[in-house]
Amino acid sequence: MKKHILLMPLDMHLHLRDGVMLENIAPLTAYSFSGAVIMPNLISPITTKEDLVAYKERIVAAAPNDYFEPYMTLFYQNYDKNFLVDVAEEITAIKLYPAGITTNSDDGVSSFDIKEMRPTLEAMSQLGIPLCIHGETDGFVMDREAEFMPIYELLAKNFPDLKIIMEHITTKAAVDMLDKYDNLYATITVHHLLLTLDDVVGGMMQPHLFCKPIAKRPEDLDALLSIALEAHPKVMFGSDSAPHPCNKKESCGCAAGVFTAPIALQLLCEIFEQFDKLDNLQTFVSDNAQGIYGICPEFKEVVLEKRPFVVPDAYSNVVPMYAGETLSWAIESVD
Amino acid sequence: MKKHILLMPLDMHLHLRDGVMLENIAPLTAYSFSGAVIMPNLISPITTKEDLVAYKERIVAAAPNDYFEPYMTLFYQNYDKNFLVDVAEEITAIKLYPAGITTNSDDGVSSFDIKEMRPTLEAMSQLGIPLCIHGETDGFVMDREAEFMPIYELLAKNFPDLKIIMEHITTKAAVDMLDKYDNLYATITVHHLLLTLDDVVGGMMQPHLFCKPIAKRPEDLDALLSIALEAHPKVMFGSDSAPHPCNKKESCGCAAGVFTAPIALQLLCEIFEQFDKLDNLQTFVSDNAQGIYGICPEFKEVVLEKRPFVVPDAYSNVVPMYAGETLSWAIESVD
Repeated sequence: MKKHILLMPLDMHLHLRDGVMLENIAPLTAYSFSGAVIMPNLISPITTKEDLVAYKERIVAAAPNDYFEPYMTLFYQNYDKNFLVDVAEEITAIKLYPAGITTNSDDGVSSFDIKEMRPTLEAMSQLGIPLCIHGETDGFVMDREAEFMPIYELLAKNFPDLKIIMEHITTKAAVDMLDKYDNLYATITVHHLLLTLDDVVGGMMQPHLFCKPIAKRPEDLDALLSIALEAHPKVMFGSDSAPHPCNKKESCGCAAGVFTAPIALQLLCEIFEQFDKLDNLQTFVSDNAQGIYGICPEFKEVVLEKRPFVVPDAYSNVVPMYAGETLSWAIESVD
Repeated sequence: MKKHILLMPLDMHLHLRDGVMLENIAPLTAYSFSGAVIMPNLISPITTKEDLVAYKERIVAAAPNDYFEPYMTLFYQNYDKNFLVDVAEEITAIKLYPAGITTNSDDGVSSFDIKEMRPTLEAMSQLGIPLCIHGETDGFVMDREAEFMPIYELLAKNFPDLKIIMEHITTKAAVDMLDKYDNLYATITVHHLLLTLDDVVGGMMQPHLFCKPIAKRPEDLDALLSIALEAHPKVMFGSDSAPHPCNKKESCGCAAGVFTAPIALQLLCEIFEQFDKLDNLQTFVSDNAQGIYGICPEFKEVVLEKRPFVVPDAYSNVVPMYAGETLSWAIESVD
């Protein structure tokens, strides 16, 4: 049976939530990934060292049986340099949300005023703290990411020593932006390598495929696939796996987020094999991230096997992407 | 209190379904409309005179207390001329669905072969039977209507004496097509005068605003508003009100259709008043349709009043658009 080995897989964009949800889902990522960048948009966003350290402890406690490194992030605000110096050791990045743009982002940035942001972003540049950005405007849903490109450009130009990560990119516009500035990088989810808007609302409406940014047009999917499959050196895997209890998905007013954490590696094998690019998957799912972030995860070997794997209907009360469907790769062992 | 009177409102595109659903919802339209063009896409589409007559009888029986004319339609197939001559008296139009494009359309047209369609369409031209079309391809969801325009053109050119109605148009592309051919007409729903894709998936995902064709871009909404508000003489109101039981809307895999029948006139008053075009509403909601179809509905006077109207949470087991929200116009009386 065909096997494929991945070493130290990294999920560079992950939502673990808190409380019971955290306890239920953290072990799923900890099992098959060496580490993950943990998003700070809890109901009270993570903005203090105390909250950050306590949250990290809860994550580690939720997944006691696996070696797993939670790479912590702060919720972007205009922070004092002394605070950043103090917290730098504890964080891997700072995550910026435009205000109100997605789940729990109301306390985000409401205007991109370079003058106001300069002290924080210069301090981050000096301290080598990357800036992760949810890059959407409040415009028309299909245009939000493309409309955000001038803000990426503004930040990339003004802070050339700041590593800026365009998170969960979904458009050809973002792909085209990637090589325009040395300090721009990107994460791509697995669902955005599979879906267009057609899959979300083209047939029946599919709440479990609804996320922000929403899946875009076929030409956008093609552009994302092209850089992921070649493992473009500025691109990393970040699942943006975002669990919601199923009653918040299957109702009037379904929350945004696709839950992929426990099936992401299997799906990635399927996609990369389909395009005969399995050899590039290691780079996409770990090596690029190690280089970009300068992180050295401890050894973990994930052996995937090409055999049918039926996605569970739910993991506790969270419905995963492709629930009940059969994937062509399964996780055989983790060491 | 401000009042607005509408005479003989007509809904030129309506789904009444069958059985208990029909019994529950037919009275809602029969109360405030003089007549409606009834779509034939039942689970077994209406393709025989017997089925058509029997369905009409069930509709009339479901709404015994109101004067209401169900303008019946056949499901398009390549029909024999003798059959069309025989059935002509019983029908107002024939409705064409591309195969598989929407609810109960699997038996629709799978290729637009003019040679094959010619006998039917020439007979319809001679008999004065309009052709109503659900104009979507099976392409990307945001492009399906625009991609269908060449088929409208092909039919309009080849059958200049056939009245062709572009049903529930949603795009600037269709608006721009309207005046290119004398024999092209259009219906517009009330929800497509209110929504863009933003309302469906731009915030939370809204199953009760999900329909086919899906609501499009802001510039499409503007184009639709421009011809509706001026009551362009080739444009008619057709609600495309499409009830589904709420368990088929609020679930994984939500069915397409917005239920507006009992709130359509109130919403239209709100929209037309907002743009200071209330004087044009009568033409949009009745007069144009009378002229285009050559129909003479019996007298009905609907008095609307400007006062708050809270949309019910459900009509039997069907959740309407804007359930629980407050509209600014209410139906005061119907005579």
